[in-house]
Amino acid sequence: MQEAPPEFDAAFRARLRDLLVWRRDVRRFRREPLPSGTIERLIELAAHAPSVGLSQPWRFVLVDAPQRRAAVREIFQHCNAEALMVQPPERRSHYARLKLAGLDEAPCHLAVFSEPAPPQGHGLGRLTMPETTDYSAVMAAHTLWLAARAEGIGMGWVSILDPAAVAAALDVPGEWRFIGYFCLGYPQSVDPVPELQRENWEHRRPATEALLRR
Amino acid sequence: MQEAPPEFDAAFRARLRDLLVWRRDVRRFRREPLPSGTIERLIELAAHAPSVGLSQPWRFVLVDAPQRRAAVREIFQHCNAEALMVQPPERRSHYARLKLAGLDEAPCHLAVFSEPAPPQGHGLGRLTMPETTDYSAVMAAHTLWLAARAEGIGMGWVSILDPAAVAAALDVPGEWRFIGYFCLGYPQSVDPVPELQRENWEHRRPATEALLRR
Repeated sequence: MQEAPPEFDAAFRARLRDLLVWRRDVRRFRREPLPSGTIERLIELAAHAPSVGLSQPWRFVLVDAPQRRAAVREIFQHCNAEALMVQPPERRSHYARLKLAGLDEAPCHLAVFSEPAPPQGHGLGRLTMPETTDYSAVMAAHTLWLAARAEGIGMGWVSILDPAAVAAALDVPGEWRFIGYFCLGYPQSVDPVPELQRENWEHRRPATEALLRR
Repeated sequence: MQEAPPEFDAAFRARLRDLLVWRRDVRRFRREPLPSGTIERLIELAAHAPSVGLSQPWRFVLVDAPQRRAAVREIFQHCNAEALMVQPPERRSHYARLKLAGLDEAPCHLAVFSEPAPPQGHGLGRLTMPETTDYSAVMAAHTLWLAARAEGIGMGWVSILDPAAVAAALDVPGEWRFIGYFCLGYPQSVDPVPELQRENWEHRRPATEALLRR
């Protein structure tokens, strides 16, 4: 028997908008752990993301070992010091004051990689755009982000990292491509305004500025 | 006064799961147009996606001109013919039977690009991973996909395209990077199973197969 399709009503759409508006890149976490089984459940949902040719090329790495977390933290500190120095002199002190990762406090660390040439999918859809395997993994991470926020769990994307160094620190297959390192946990606070905007680093612009018609 | 944070309850989370499970890559559209203002509203929501350093590097191009749509269709046909020929001989007839794009029927065509070095964001977060601007645009497209599905609107990602040819056909700034071409419209049918699985091209695997612990 055919499963009945769900109806998405106006109330749901309003809540979905809230979810999108109140999702944040979280860098300030409470230390309490996520309930047992939570991250596995979120990963299962993330695997419903779109993927090129149904290749499901995302690879998830849960990082628990203290020495591996310490290695990632060192890579971040090194890369962030470099990023500070390429800021123009007048922005450096502002940059240095920003908190850009919650690596020390977040109870859950998740690295996401992509497999660039998965047998699954039989190559469909990626001959001219092989980067679509990376994009599929990005959409899985984004799915997980939204599903986490719906449970009151915050997530932060750490991109100030050297991909090769992270791959080595986590001892993953050599062909995998590093997509991002994610901190998860309960946020210290919730807000509809991005932290970088509250800190006056940058502000949001209307979408119409990014729209052309052809 | 501080806006009250939304509460996401179990009923909402169950609907969100439905949304993720019933989102599809749609290639079979009804021809009726989207209501006026719909795509602009969806783009406004998409601009709440995460972006590296709050750089909002996504660029949206609504493609209405028949000659530009025809040019994209030609690029697709050319690239798809090439993709057919690199399939192993025993899979070619199966590949040829798949419907991989709804370019002829979809009432709304949207191309998404990224700006690789936007001034917005002041470079934050992308020194070691410049590809995060592309990833931000991917998350905007994915946000739009989910918001569209919540209104009963289907979306399909066309990746069987030559990025440089599409950029030329749409006459966009030379530095922009092509992320994807999207068809939108009301779907002919809805289903919780991906079309590539229904067509026996590929099937989904459990997320646990993509999970490592370190």
